[in-house]
Amino acid sequence: MESVDGGITTPRGFRASAVAAGIKRSGLDLMVAECPTEAICVGLFTSNAVKAAPVLVSMDNLRRSGGVVRAVVVNSGNANACNGRSGLDGARMTTRKAAELLGSSPEKILLASTGVIGRPLPLDRIIAGLEKAIPRLSTERVASKEASMAIMTTDRVPKETAMRVSFGQRTVTIGGVAKGVGMIHPQLATMLCLLTTDVAADRPTLFAALKEAADQSFNMVSVDRDTSTNDTLILMASGLSNHSISLDDRDFQRFQEALTEVCVDLAKRMVRDGEGATKTFEVVVVGASSRGDARLCARSIASSNLVKTAVFGCDPNWGRMVAAAGYSGARVDQDRVKIRLEDDEGSSLDWVENGCQISERANEQAKRFLCRDSFRLVFDLGLGSFSARAWGCDLTYDYVKVNSQYTT
Amino acid sequence: MESVDGGITTPRGFRASAVAAGIKRSGLDLMVAECPTEAICVGLFTSNAVKAAPVLVSMDNLRRSGGVVRAVVVNSGNANACNGRSGLDGARMTTRKAAELLGSSPEKILLASTGVIGRPLPLDRIIAGLEKAIPRLSTERVASKEASMAIMTTDRVPKETAMRVSFGQRTVTIGGVAKGVGMIHPQLATMLCLLTTDVAADRPTLFAALKEAADQSFNMVSVDRDTSTNDTLILMASGLSNHSISLDDRDFQRFQEALTEVCVDLAKRMVRDGEGATKTFEVVVVGASSRGDARLCARSIASSNLVKTAVFGCDPNWGRMVAAAGYSGARVDQDRVKIRLEDDEGSSLDWVENGCQISERANEQAKRFLCRDSFRLVFDLGLGSFSARAWGCDLTYDYVKVNSQYTT
Repeated sequence: MESVDGGITTPRGFRASAVAAGIKRSGLDLMVAECPTEAICVGLFTSNAVKAAPVLVSMDNLRRSGGVVRAVVVNSGNANACNGRSGLDGARMTTRKAAELLGSSPEKILLASTGVIGRPLPLDRIIAGLEKAIPRLSTERVASKEASMAIMTTDRVPKETAMRVSFGQRTVTIGGVAKGVGMIHPQLATMLCLLTTDVAADRPTLFAALKEAADQSFNMVSVDRDTSTNDTLILMASGLSNHSISLDDRDFQRFQEALTEVCVDLAKRMVRDGEGATKTFEVVVVGASSRGDARLCARSIASSNLVKTAVFGCDPNWGRMVAAAGYSGARVDQDRVKIRLEDDEGSSLDWVENGCQISERANEQAKRFLCRDSFRLVFDLGLGSFSARAWGCDLTYDYVKVNSQYTT
Repeated sequence: MESVDGGITTPRGFRASAVAAGIKRSGLDLMVAECPTEAICVGLFTSNAVKAAPVLVSMDNLRRSGGVVRAVVVNSGNANACNGRSGLDGARMTTRKAAELLGSSPEKILLASTGVIGRPLPLDRIIAGLEKAIPRLSTERVASKEASMAIMTTDRVPKETAMRVSFGQRTVTIGGVAKGVGMIHPQLATMLCLLTTDVAADRPTLFAALKEAADQSFNMVSVDRDTSTNDTLILMASGLSNHSISLDDRDFQRFQEALTEVCVDLAKRMVRDGEGATKTFEVVVVGASSRGDARLCARSIASSNLVKTAVFGCDPNWGRMVAAAGYSGARVDQDRVKIRLEDDEGSSLDWVENGCQISERANEQAKRFLCRDSFRLVFDLGLGSFSARAWGCDLTYDYVKVNSQYTT
């Protein structure tokens, strides 16, 4: 498999466009992604008991259409969550208008929204935006780029990626766009992310691949331990690569790996752009008693406010990492814990052994790793053979700044 | 019941003293609390799988002594956690030295430590400190005050309280000291807190009262969602009030309420002094389907980084509160949620109804409440008759400052 410069319009069969509809104060804020031949589609949505209107409508439409989807409409600047009846009505109107302009039917339109919760949806602007956006749908590279910009909220950079994987003569492409960057603590779901692929596959196959990819990527990042009301992960498959896969054949595994790579890439971009973040770190837990324990432990360390502030200050406070492992719910024997630091250039440092620091000098050397833009923390529980990776960012003054002035 | 100016030496039968042993850079850092006639003692300890040496030794000593305790030794400046064998040896040596100086036996001595994790314990300084502290044990008011100062780490103010409750001619007194103020997210346990009382009761009675009091106080506060390795809550009963209670009699309920009041008072002081905090808020969840749901929901709102930063910025972002309820695990019907704000002077504001904001004007008025030093958030789930209270503080630039430079 091979990473390529691309996004959601890179796989065959997808068009996109984006406009400035005036939902945000300025900039692109409404995008449409479309498969003219209709795509087989699966989605994962927030586990939050409070679900935004676009989430409820998308879940319902996936059921009603049997997962045959024409387009996804995404807006930023307004989450359309906690708007009651009028929020649902607005979401339904949006699907009807998009269907009318595309010559499709409303249940084949999915929605996603991101922005402030509880503000009335400016429906007239969304309708007017669709009238401008849909005639401009295009398969060009720039269309994906603009789509990735239109879904940004406090994101500093747009996030898109693409991956190509060959099966003999045939090539399957996967593309994706995503946004972050606060209220990020996905659980059985993820943030706003739209993936496209030209593979041919049925829904159970696509769903199995997406669930596993999300578990290894979006579900293993945390910016602030707050799980959003709007988390949405959608995968659309056009089938136009003429290569088909199914759950039982051996190509499934390779498609799965490529999809996971795409999701990990986008998840890492999300963390790198975490609100106020100046650096990122990867937590690799090894030696766990079970896969579940490895995941719990990795996610707990990557999510801890105290670990994140220590990383910000380059403070070699490994005790906080051990404490976060200890309260994660995973089986931990403190006398067996080992910690090693690694950077991207191949340097590494053994820092903690048998649950104790190796030396004061190791603490001093650890600072050098913690001061990098990114580093890897290998946390060995010494109990078994299971492992997991999670990604976190530091907690900084700017996180507080961004979030103390969000709606005002 | 009546709140009185006092601390752990206020109930009959307790002495305390504190010294500067040189464990911290400056100031009092070692305290001893003693019951010369021996106390019936119960404790609750951290649920973190990684437990500090003093926690392990105290749990073991409570078992071995059958809960008959002579003294508790507490140091700040070093958590004695993650120090392996030598940490345990140091803790045992401390109990032996204290027992020798008091003419008691080591299993009747309990320990608690707070400070940096993973730094070797300066045992010689602790031994020398005990030699100074124990001859100075005193029943005076100032002894409790100094004890409350000796257990501070990043605390800005010492925390102590006392409560008197009459049973006919007899009066029972309860006193307590506690420290905060980071790594505060107690679970089935609490932070360092020592309570004394002169009630006469057996261990099951004291344990039942302590568990319930902790559930309604320390277990309902959060500064940063990090559960410490050193959480310790100890209750010592001298019996010298000559009033005895037991689980079955009706005085138990009144003792229970007084003990809960003492714990709530100390827990609120802890939050008020949360690292970097400028204000505190009480979350009262009502209308929940079960007691467990009410607790989950209250704690989730009070713990959310996004709620806490919004409170810091006086940002009327109620959607974050609804989102935090939604991911709490409690049953939530978003269309039934009501939110009301209250201040300490009797003003209140209906802010959210049926899951939607009442008006833009209500948002503007909400800012006035959020800007207070403290306010109350009444969150009505509209589903049942259960309620719970939790307490949180804001997340500020200073939290990041304190915690990015803790060990260095």
